[in-house]
Amino acid sequence: MSVPTSNTQVLFKEDPGAALVQTSHMEVVTVPFASPELAEGEVLVKNLYISLDPYMRGRMNTRVKSYSASFELGKVMQAGGVSQVLASRRDGFAVGDIVSTFVGWEEVTLVPAALPLRKIDSAVPVPLSYYLGVLGMVGATAYHGLLDLCSPKAGETLFVSGAAGAVGLVVGQIAKIKGLRVVGSAGSDEKVALLKSQFGFDEAFNYKTVPSISEALGAAAPKGVDVYFDNVGGEHLDAALAHINVHGRIAACGMISGYNGQQYTFKNLTNIIGRQVKIEGFIIGGKLADPEFTARFGGDVGKWVLEGKLKYAEHVVEGIAKAPEAFVGLFKGDNTGKLIIKV
Amino acid sequence: MSVPTSNTQVLFKEDPGAALVQTSHMEVVTVPFASPELAEGEVLVKNLYISLDPYMRGRMNTRVKSYSASFELGKVMQAGGVSQVLASRRDGFAVGDIVSTFVGWEEVTLVPAALPLRKIDSAVPVPLSYYLGVLGMVGATAYHGLLDLCSPKAGETLFVSGAAGAVGLVVGQIAKIKGLRVVGSAGSDEKVALLKSQFGFDEAFNYKTVPSISEALGAAAPKGVDVYFDNVGGEHLDAALAHINVHGRIAACGMISGYNGQQYTFKNLTNIIGRQVKIEGFIIGGKLADPEFTARFGGDVGKWVLEGKLKYAEHVVEGIAKAPEAFVGLFKGDNTGKLIIKV
Repeated sequence: MSVPTSNTQVLFKEDPGAALVQTSHMEVVTVPFASPELAEGEVLVKNLYISLDPYMRGRMNTRVKSYSASFELGKVMQAGGVSQVLASRRDGFAVGDIVSTFVGWEEVTLVPAALPLRKIDSAVPVPLSYYLGVLGMVGATAYHGLLDLCSPKAGETLFVSGAAGAVGLVVGQIAKIKGLRVVGSAGSDEKVALLKSQFGFDEAFNYKTVPSISEALGAAAPKGVDVYFDNVGGEHLDAALAHINVHGRIAACGMISGYNGQQYTFKNLTNIIGRQVKIEGFIIGGKLADPEFTARFGGDVGKWVLEGKLKYAEHVVEGIAKAPEAFVGLFKGDNTGKLIIKV
Repeated sequence: MSVPTSNTQVLFKEDPGAALVQTSHMEVVTVPFASPELAEGEVLVKNLYISLDPYMRGRMNTRVKSYSASFELGKVMQAGGVSQVLASRRDGFAVGDIVSTFVGWEEVTLVPAALPLRKIDSAVPVPLSYYLGVLGMVGATAYHGLLDLCSPKAGETLFVSGAAGAVGLVVGQIAKIKGLRVVGSAGSDEKVALLKSQFGFDEAFNYKTVPSISEALGAAAPKGVDVYFDNVGGEHLDAALAHINVHGRIAACGMISGYNGQQYTFKNLTNIIGRQVKIEGFIIGGKLADPEFTARFGGDVGKWVLEGKLKYAEHVVEGIAKAPEAFVGLFKGDNTGKLIIKV
């Protein structure tokens, strides 16, 4: 397995502040690469796929505390990746192994000794990129947020925003498997049609064209909303609070509508009290290090995928140099399904 | 026990809409009263004390769905009361018994067959009005919201807004009993001084005079906030979200700052996700019908009150005709402690 002599990378160039992120906030460079002398525990990997996700926008805020540390200006940006080991000084990891961990937006990454590596058993008959999605952080996010935090019951109504996004598609399908009525919102008529025709959603609407998200939700969920999986925040969360049933549960997974600094004035927050609503925010990081969880999650979701009950959509962009443009597209609703860069 | 021949009542006269509630939205009338023929299950009571609470403002919104049904225009307003039985056709309730239930803002109320009555054992050496407060809904609200929903641990930091209000005082003191560092906000320097000198709060600040609630909270809670008991909403909730620790818990009990229709634009809502915060809204109604809860609550709180560990403050206003003015004062921060009308 030969080590490349150059490394194409995406650097974090400029904090977008409150503005919409643009490609000019990043910079693609190709630098010479020489295989370093590895220290104990270090692993050199060639990245096969990296995952681009909305939360990364928060890491571009250098002046605001977010839930991950900010990216460093002038340094390579970071992402979850599936990679192949080029050289290893860590026990249990050999050249050629397929692993998943945090890497750079780049072709080759030196993984430090402190960073855990998840070894991927490539004998399982799914594409490797799935470990960045339905069998990785995305699937775990949907599974944990929906099942562990919201305890959905058959016959209840689920609403999921960002339903055509990576997490949303998995949330909706797991809810259908569990016997719920499933309502989703998405940002184009094509996505809405796909949710209903391909992913089994009972109702879906285009939040960009309906006169009011709250009215559209009320029509789609005539018995109210028991569980809301929030990928969006803002007006969507407010609409869910307008239609939430007593003892409703909300998993707060993302507030993409706030990542670019927009602020929204809620009208229905007091329903949290009157309808005895539980809102629970979460990030999935820690759960993937919990063996009880990964066994349960991998078992259920792996089975559903192999049985065809859980369809999984990817939006694969080829070439690391295309990553900035693909990332900017996330905030314009360009993608259906998990955004993956094939490095 | 003689039945009165007139009944002074407070009627709901006008929906305040988005405006601050004023005495002109209510009307005090005295009407002749003749003892009615009771139907099976009905009980006629003479009201001794009634309780006025911020949530009642929501019941004055006739066009907005709130967590209790709206008051009816032209009809007597409702409140929790401690009353004495004048006549009874309900098994187990005899003339002279002291009971607690929902009554009118009035001197005499006919309690319908469907409404549960709680019999009060007046042998317990506390004032009867306490059953409208620390041993009633207020105490139960503090106890359940703090202990059951937020699982506070010794050494953690609690923040409670509306700390000098009825619920806030009980919340802060229970938290001290449980070994937490306790920070409160209140609306006057006198209240702030009282919280620290009389009620054992570690820190307190006057939210009306500090330059920023968030900065004041940050200074008072240098290790962050683990548990926030929210009586206020709006800027207070936003400040708590700014300083909340990872895995923080918020009991959403009241959003008094929103009851008069003001809306607030949150800046820190995304911390719900990043810091994995749980917010749980609740109303206490159902819990007081749960024997497991009332035994646990009555046992703990009764003991703390009798031992002097839990001081309880009342603001007693004499005469039902003063109720409208006292109620309006609730929203101006006029009272320290539970507002009680001695009928």
